Amino acid sequence: MYLGSWLSRLCRGLSRPIGKTTQPTWGSLSRSLALSSQRIPELSSFVARTNTCGELRSSHLGQEVTLCGWIQYRRQNTFLVLRDWHGLVQVIIPQDESAASVRKILCEAPVESVVKVSGTVISRPPGQENPKMPTGEIEIKAKAAELLNACKKLPFEIKDFVKKTEALRLQYRYLDLRSFQMQYNLRLRSKMVMKMREYLCNLHGFVDIETPTLFKRTPGGAKEFLVPSREPGKFYSLPQSPQQFKQLLMVGGLDRYFQVARCYRDEGSRPDRQPEFTQIDIEMSFVDQAGIQHLTEGLLQYSWPDDKEPLVIPFPSMTFAEALATYGTDKPDTRFGMKIVDISDVFRNTEIRFLRDALAKPQGTIKAICVPEGAEVLPIFLNAKRNWSSPFAKFIIEEERLELAKLMEIKEEDMILLTAGEHEKACSLLGKLRLECADLLETRGVVLRDPALFSFLWVVDFPLFLTKEGSPTELESAHHPFTAPHSSDIHLLYTEPEKVRGQHYDLVLNGTELGGGSIRIHDAQLQRYILETLLKEDVQLLSHLLQALDCGAPPHGGIALGLDRLVCLVTGVSSIRDVIAFPKSYRGHDLMSNAPDSVLPEELKPYHIQVSWPTDLEEEEKASATPSNHLNS
Amino acid sequence: MYLGSWLSRLCRGLSRPIGKTTQPTWGSLSRSLALSSQRIPELSSFVARTNTCGELRSSHLGQEVTLCGWIQYRRQNTFLVLRDWHGLVQVIIPQDESAASVRKILCEAPVESVVKVSGTVISRPPGQENPKMPTGEIEIKAKAAELLNACKKLPFEIKDFVKKTEALRLQYRYLDLRSFQMQYNLRLRSKMVMKMREYLCNLHGFVDIETPTLFKRTPGGAKEFLVPSREPGKFYSLPQSPQQFKQLLMVGGLDRYFQVARCYRDEGSRPDRQPEFTQIDIEMSFVDQAGIQHLTEGLLQYSWPDDKEPLVIPFPSMTFAEALATYGTDKPDTRFGMKIVDISDVFRNTEIRFLRDALAKPQGTIKAICVPEGAEVLPIFLNAKRNWSSPFAKFIIEEERLELAKLMEIKEEDMILLTAGEHEKACSLLGKLRLECADLLETRGVVLRDPALFSFLWVVDFPLFLTKEGSPTELESAHHPFTAPHSSDIHLLYTEPEKVRGQHYDLVLNGTELGGGSIRIHDAQLQRYILETLLKEDVQLLSHLLQALDCGAPPHGGIALGLDRLVCLVTGVSSIRDVIAFPKSYRGHDLMSNAPDSVLPEELKPYHIQVSWPTDLEEEEKASATPSNHLNS
Repeated sequence: MYLGSWLSRLCRGLSRPIGKTTQPTWGSLSRSLALSSQRIPELSSFVARTNTCGELRSSHLGQEVTLCGWIQYRRQNTFLVLRDWHGLVQVIIPQDESAASVRKILCEAPVESVVKVSGTVISRPPGQENPKMPTGEIEIKAKAAELLNACKKLPFEIKDFVKKTEALRLQYRYLDLRSFQMQYNLRLRSKMVMKMREYLCNLHGFVDIETPTLFKRTPGGAKEFLVPSREPGKFYSLPQSPQQFKQLLMVGGLDRYFQVARCYRDEGSRPDRQPEFTQIDIEMSFVDQAGIQHLTEGLLQYSWPDDKEPLVIPFPSMTFAEALATYGTDKPDTRFGMKIVDISDVFRNTEIRFLRDALAKPQGTIKAICVPEGAEVLPIFLNAKRNWSSPFAKFIIEEERLELAKLMEIKEEDMILLTAGEHEKACSLLGKLRLECADLLETRGVVLRDPALFSFLWVVDFPLFLTKEGSPTELESAHHPFTAPHSSDIHLLYTEPEKVRGQHYDLVLNGTELGGGSIRIHDAQLQRYILETLLKEDVQLLSHLLQALDCGAPPHGGIALGLDRLVCLVTGVSSIRDVIAFPKSYRGHDLMSNAPDSVLPEELKPYHIQVSWPTDLEEEEKASATPSNHLNS
Repeated sequence: MYLGSWLSRLCRGLSRPIGKTTQPTWGSLSRSLALSSQRIPELSSFVARTNTCGELRSSHLGQEVTLCGWIQYRRQNTFLVLRDWHGLVQVIIPQDESAASVRKILCEAPVESVVKVSGTVISRPPGQENPKMPTGEIEIKAKAAELLNACKKLPFEIKDFVKKTEALRLQYRYLDLRSFQMQYNLRLRSKMVMKMREYLCNLHGFVDIETPTLFKRTPGGAKEFLVPSREPGKFYSLPQSPQQFKQLLMVGGLDRYFQVARCYRDEGSRPDRQPEFTQIDIEMSFVDQAGIQHLTEGLLQYSWPDDKEPLVIPFPSMTFAEALATYGTDKPDTRFGMKIVDISDVFRNTEIRFLRDALAKPQGTIKAICVPEGAEVLPIFLNAKRNWSSPFAKFIIEEERLELAKLMEIKEEDMILLTAGEHEKACSLLGKLRLECADLLETRGVVLRDPALFSFLWVVDFPLFLTKEGSPTELESAHHPFTAPHSSDIHLLYTEPEKVRGQHYDLVLNGTELGGGSIRIHDAQLQRYILETLLKEDVQLLSHLLQALDCGAPPHGGIALGLDRLVCLVTGVSSIRDVIAFPKSYRGHDLMSNAPDSVLPEELKPYHIQVSWPTDLEEEEKASATPSNHLNS
């Protein structure tokens, strides 16, 4: 649907209905976005219009109305179509001599000009009604018109069959925002956030508290943007989340906090990441994991768009270990099967060397996934037919074949992907293959994932620590150092910390991590032990937090949900850039204003900094000056 | 009331009522903060408690409840008072041997420890009810108790009669937040913002849109923080407002936008300013000045706290010229009189040299204010008595004296302050004296300004341009270069631009500028003329905006209200730091975490910057190391 055929569809809708479409139109979407349980907003209060372009019906016949909008289309100087977000309406251009000035304005204004039109709502002549168009029974007989602003130039036609690169769309974002899809995305986002606020503030007594974004660098905060201050050598840092503040608010007795929080992360160039993003940030005192999960489920159910199937709660839950073993990832896409099966036992006595070797190693396993109809679509490897097509099919004995077929419920034309090796690596590999296969199958027409399905999943019982890559005796936090250990695992902290599970939970939607949270450590001594002894962090940087925990900190926990990602999944668009009004390119540039930009040396002076020009600058400049794809620049 | 006697008042309330207080208590304020027209929020959903500490009444008698809170007070190991934000409740510590473990926990936990208590709601013994306390008819007979966290140390007693410097409060902000006033301020702020959102989104169809804070430097943006990017010499800028974005959204057809927007302004050290602050940012298409004013009035009326007198709208309005002539400022405090009166005519034939000289000059005037009862309280200058006490009283002839007394309605004991000079300067001086006198009178017990009075005022018809100080032939924008000129003054743009009035409006509350807005220029040619020809700006930096105006930009306008300032005035606190959860000191420091802070040179490397250490660094370091007032550091 993205940047779909709305314009042609709607224009088409104005003349004769051609074919059938079940796709939403401006008018119907505008209605579906209204909060059904509430008073319908007044959309023309305080402004020059009496009505929006989308709301007039037969019930308005005879009314004198004033409309403001953009000229969408004009035909033979007899009628034009006026557009605002709320819909389209047909305006009849007067032909009599006494209305020459009105006719002149309406006939001469270029398409996309802004006009104000006053006139009478009249019936369309019999046979000319347009049932596809919400305003299709009426038209406006113009009596007065005013050109509010002429559209003098357009860098591209605002018609969706005119293909535009994303770079061009971002450069002229103010025009791209006029598209149906962008309007829909941003308005839906606003409604969802409003419903979330109603749920949190009005239904459950949460307090919306703003926390600073000019803060202190956090330990290991390598991805934090720096902001020079006017004191030589002193810098603020733009935090990646309000984590410390939300915990300090709990110490401060603000026991139900939330914020739609702007967060910053400097990851350099990363596709589909933004240097600034938004999270729904929540923290509560006296709560446990189940409490946060129920709250979150209620929040999403309450704010779910009315034009989608209502969410069923509670969401299913899975341990990290189970997710890894079954889906090869900590964020399983549970919209389809193809689960990983441990087939080690089938091959316990195999002659196949690499399988035997794998099983002999510690944690050695053989795993497989069954790709339904895979053999038909992806004619590789072994399929379920008797004559298995595989380089090593001949080494699989009949008994193993039957056992495997039974264990994995293999059907004709299915395909089996098999791997042998260490448990975690084997699962992880098959997890990736599983998704690749799903994509491949879908490009070839097999329907695996219902686009209307929203498959939420909690993943729980993560390990609290991971061993550092390349240095297996050192530990690092799996999520962050404030996560509380499972109460039943606390004793292990002092003996086998790598076995401790954390009270962390991730929320996954359709295979995407939507957010996560944890019950936090509220005991200063435990927090200090983990930071200092286990993680070898400089506790000085967090001394204020440790002090706070000693001053009567309540038990607390919370969650943060990625809003951009959530709206992206709900609207079904392919990039978070399509749910953000003014996004950066994936190299972090604002292509409209050309930010970031050079500044004059004297502007750096108050901040006591200077640019260290790299010595290989010429190379770099040459590289960045390559015209090719604007979006990459 | 600030950091007032709530603790002592409440503790006092627990035993015998002493004296009368009309001040709000935890319980009553918690209730008054609930949105009366709406469902009362569930305050104990998802958590370990069954009730809050403030909600139990006689109607709950016999119920088994679980409460979580802080130990506020304990007496003779027989009862303790448990506190959360919602109120206080008395808990009876069991004395029988079978409950020894419960008794031990409740008797040994230090004050401000966090405990969970389960028990039965019982009546207080006859005669021991406390009518001052919302929960004063009941108490909790504890059956089980759990120490959730012991309070191990407190840097200061959480009692308001223990005076704390603001520096100490900011350093231990998480404790300061437990104060009644801070809880009240932050919760009121949250409610007001929520009501504003309801008004804008649900009642009037506004769309909440987030705009970027990593942006391009704006022309003349000397107060914008810089954020180094990973590209050598390229910087983002943290904008002072979403001005450009809101206008571009209008071009994009998002015709009713609002945002609770984080803004940044680097002004160095300024008392009662914050480097980051929040504004209610609004923009609409097809609107005129009156439309924005009505919207704003409705917004404030709708979101006004229930425990205050409802606002009367519309607000009065005054031109800039009138405000200057009558109050000597563009933000008049209209809660009291003492208006400036032009008394030039009285002294048209005076003998007094300096008055005569002043009148002879161009725009020369004599102005005065009458300070009621001023002569009694401030025994200086001339008062209304026959024997005027003034160095130049003898030069004022009887006729002038009578005329003056009549013109200014002078009464016995009033005081007249008089000045002579150029109109604007004379008014401005008297405007300042007027406020000084008001402060002086009030410190001496004269009630001038009713603390319960909220006196809103629109100031309109500002000049569009000012002449630059020190360079009277050059113009600068009085507000910003996007403000549209008055339609009746447009012709003057090409002849006498300094006489053009702008379609700008300021909203003033009790003498403080709460915000302002304007109808914007939507014509690219006019915008370019003003930027290029009149203001001599580099239009290249705004080329995207000029292009946008040529692509069918609708007429539009908006307003921005300072949220911190508004909540500050509503709550009656003296500093915006008291309505912000984690404010910076007025030198821009976070005294809790010690931000801004030094960073390692390798952390600067990815951003291609280095510190330019000032040569007189020793001096600076010495100065900043002075211990004296922590808040100044």
